[in-house]
Amino acid sequence: MNPEEQTDAILIIATSETDSNLYYATHFLAPDPFIFFATPKGGSLRERVLLMSDLEIDRARKESCADQVLSYSESEEQVKRRGVLKPGLVDVLDEVLYARGLRRLLVPATFPLEYGDRLRDLGYLLLTKSEPFFEERAVKTPQEVEAIQETQRHTEEAVEAAFEMLRQSEVRGDGIYFRGKPLSSENLKQVINVKLMERGCVAQHTIVACGDDACDPHNQGSGPLKADQPIIFDVFPRSMHSRYFADMSRTVVKGRASQAQKALYQAVSDGQEIAFGQIKDGASGREIHQQICRLFEQRGFSTGVMNGRMQGFFHGTGHGLGLDIHEPPRISKVDWILKKGEVVTVEPGLYYPGSGAVRIEDMVLVGESGCTNLTRFPKILEL
Amino acid sequence: MNPEEQTDAILIIATSETDSNLYYATHFLAPDPFIFFATPKGGSLRERVLLMSDLEIDRARKESCADQVLSYSESEEQVKRRGVLKPGLVDVLDEVLYARGLRRLLVPATFPLEYGDRLRDLGYLLLTKSEPFFEERAVKTPQEVEAIQETQRHTEEAVEAAFEMLRQSEVRGDGIYFRGKPLSSENLKQVINVKLMERGCVAQHTIVACGDDACDPHNQGSGPLKADQPIIFDVFPRSMHSRYFADMSRTVVKGRASQAQKALYQAVSDGQEIAFGQIKDGASGREIHQQICRLFEQRGFSTGVMNGRMQGFFHGTGHGLGLDIHEPPRISKVDWILKKGEVVTVEPGLYYPGSGAVRIEDMVLVGESGCTNLTRFPKILEL
Repeated sequence: MNPEEQTDAILIIATSETDSNLYYATHFLAPDPFIFFATPKGGSLRERVLLMSDLEIDRARKESCADQVLSYSESEEQVKRRGVLKPGLVDVLDEVLYARGLRRLLVPATFPLEYGDRLRDLGYLLLTKSEPFFEERAVKTPQEVEAIQETQRHTEEAVEAAFEMLRQSEVRGDGIYFRGKPLSSENLKQVINVKLMERGCVAQHTIVACGDDACDPHNQGSGPLKADQPIIFDVFPRSMHSRYFADMSRTVVKGRASQAQKALYQAVSDGQEIAFGQIKDGASGREIHQQICRLFEQRGFSTGVMNGRMQGFFHGTGHGLGLDIHEPPRISKVDWILKKGEVVTVEPGLYYPGSGAVRIEDMVLVGESGCTNLTRFPKILEL
Repeated sequence: MNPEEQTDAILIIATSETDSNLYYATHFLAPDPFIFFATPKGGSLRERVLLMSDLEIDRARKESCADQVLSYSESEEQVKRRGVLKPGLVDVLDEVLYARGLRRLLVPATFPLEYGDRLRDLGYLLLTKSEPFFEERAVKTPQEVEAIQETQRHTEEAVEAAFEMLRQSEVRGDGIYFRGKPLSSENLKQVINVKLMERGCVAQHTIVACGDDACDPHNQGSGPLKADQPIIFDVFPRSMHSRYFADMSRTVVKGRASQAQKALYQAVSDGQEIAFGQIKDGASGREIHQQICRLFEQRGFSTGVMNGRMQGFFHGTGHGLGLDIHEPPRISKVDWILKKGEVVTVEPGLYYPGSGAVRIEDMVLVGESGCTNLTRFPKILEL
């Protein structure tokens, strides 16, 4: 029996700004935590109820997709009339749940422990459920795929603007100069982030990393960029309009790439092709990831700790994305069977401190018998 | 006895991108959840330990302020050697905590229920602690005040750019036209958000709301702006560099304000002055808020539900801010004693659907015997 059948309702108490399950279930965005519960109503339909503060109640009634928006302060008054002097959030929630006979609750694994303890003290049964809390979130509707693609088009325009700046720059010695001044990681990140904001997308933690910075996959990069060395771009903005993310990485060399750099780039590119050839409904994310790992080993690109630092290929091949930048499914060492309609990144990478790093990342839509690449941006090593 | 003294360690498992306590304790930013614990080491000093994935471990060693950064995968291997085939996060954490004899743990109220249940099953004692989890976070260091002020200077430049656009616009009938085209809420929000991104600050949910939109305090506003009507600007960006927020609201009329609008503006402005005169070390946030409520009632601006919608003054007077946009302390109907060194907003507002809305917001630093206004931006009703 699945947990939904053992419980009377699902319950989420969170901030929809940061908790995408809550936003997915309510389509309501607020900066402070609020209460949502839903009761089964035949099949997968649920009666969605919000309990909102005076500050948010009118907007929630207008903007959310809830079936009912109740007033927190009215329920609070009822609790006070029963003699509770300073009712807390759980007292108010109890007032509403008790009246509806909802005692067995399914909550996300991340449900706040303090509220969980208080609810159990009051006699509620709480079952937790890990991600995916809403299985259907991983499989995107055509509208969701379109939203991701729209964010991706903006991403490509922004990265193109940065590449254009690199093209217009000149190489002097091992430096890169734009209009006579050394070009830095910060310069290009600003171009990308501002272009994206002009298009209504928020880019944070944008990566433009060169040299040893690039060998740490989450190092955002800083300082002057170097000629003849791989520069990793990784850009993953969220649309303020749709709230859907996109994610793309490219690696380029301004100047000339060495034979060793070309071999590294080719291996990563071939690794990506393995995934493109295998991703389809029913495919195992783990097997795809392992095949790429084997290819890298065969080409002599090994993975492990060297001089106290991880090198080689030490992150997953890909992750789902949508309302979160990282969400199910995974293409990694973890078991995961891909499903039609999921959107996943394909982003193998190789990192060797002292010699260089390459990561190439596209987004694909999992199909019945293959996958569709949602990324249209060219892959060119030398700019 | 305070909870710290009843426990062996504090434990946080969260994403530092969204959990500011974790960022505050570690100064390490990562997109996925990680484990942090700290053991008392005399007085308030604690030995800070991070348990990091292969992907983040090198960066954590470089960037975090932890005393020790342990390898998650090494501990995972140890658990496997003891015969656990697929160790979960709690198994790996148990390996590390058990070896150190840490059994009684203090966790935030928001600690994930699933991990809490698993740890208790393994014999750990968990106590929860509500906000403020780190009391010292509310009282800002001079460096933190400087960071907030830096974000605020950028905010003022961005709002000034939007005001300049309004000044250069012309009124035709009840419309506002910039270079011949109707000026919209979206136009001004984009100017503000892009200017802030150029300065390394991320502004989301920026409010430029006019007419009835402005009567809902969290409505971001949309469509063409109207002349002779109050327009509320509320801008609260975060610096990508320091991660500290600023927060400012202004209300302006393009064209002529009516006598009724001027009276509304004057009441809100006088409400702000009450707070400026009362905020100091030891002052009660609730009393300040109540005084402002009384002033509004005296001026004939009542609060309550009218035609099914909240009107009047139905949010708090102010909130602390720093690494979060809303954090302790509060100046509201809730009990809270202000302390020297806290930074709080002062933002009374009045909202009357059909006639108009005004909110004015500055940030102040609580001092020994008064407060210092950190906001330098002028307050002018008619632009």
